[in-house]
Amino acid sequence: MEYSTFGRHVAVDTWGVDFDKLNDAEWLQSHMIEAAEASGATVLSVQAKQFDPQGATVLVLLSESHLSIHTYPEKGFAAIDCYTCGETVDPQLAIDYLVDVLRPERTYGKKLVRGVGEMEVVEPVIRTPVSVK
Amino acid sequence: MEYSTFGRHVAVDTWGVDFDKLNDAEWLQSHMIEAAEASGATVLSVQAKQFDPQGATVLVLLSESHLSIHTYPEKGFAAIDCYTCGETVDPQLAIDYLVDVLRPERTYGKKLVRGVGEMEVVEPVIRTPVSVK
Repeated sequence: MEYSTFGRHVAVDTWGVDFDKLNDAEWLQSHMIEAAEASGATVLSVQAKQFDPQGATVLVLLSESHLSIHTYPEKGFAAIDCYTCGETVDPQLAIDYLVDVLRPERTYGKKLVRGVGEMEVVEPVIRTPVSVK
Repeated sequence: MEYSTFGRHVAVDTWGVDFDKLNDAEWLQSHMIEAAEASGATVLSVQAKQFDPQGATVLVLLSESHLSIHTYPEKGFAAIDCYTCGETVDPQLAIDYLVDVLRPERTYGKKLVRGVGEMEVVEPVIRTPVSVK
């Protein structure tokens, strides 16, 4: 069996996020899994690390690639990546979910189209938070 | 204590890599750890997954962010990311190490400068393999 190497990789820097959200690896892990599932991806395993004195990293291994977050609570900053291979899973849906949950004041992102030759850079549409969770 | 949010994220698609290298999660894991250490990063934990009938993913959680690889052995394809925060660790060194080990025929990459506002896209210099390992 052969699989398509086509993939979409959305990288988003978020700013102005609450300290408490960004400093809770367990809470983040839970929402990262939800975000992955919201995109249609299959979660295979998770690594989460709570840093001292603050900060967290969560790496989610997907059947379709990965979802990651690195946080700097003292700066209100989180860097998020969702990279998914194939046509069926849309990484943007995982980003949308996390934006709704984290509610950043500002976001900056790039989308890379991968696995098809020259890597294309696209400006992703990062929506503003639409719900309270 | 506060940390700098500045980070460099090198994304590289590699083509023309040997099937056997790309289909050995254990071998890849070993070299991913070496690559991370070559960049000056500190490895905290690793997830590795061997897919059936072929393919592998390795996610390395670093003190400084992450290093990832997703492989499609049947296509000779691997997608690699190294994202490191701070000034001291250079993700390009991890990429250089992996290019030397994997010896791809072709590479395509982008470098994202993150954690400083608008995300800047830079064309990284991906060297050709220089050693046999």
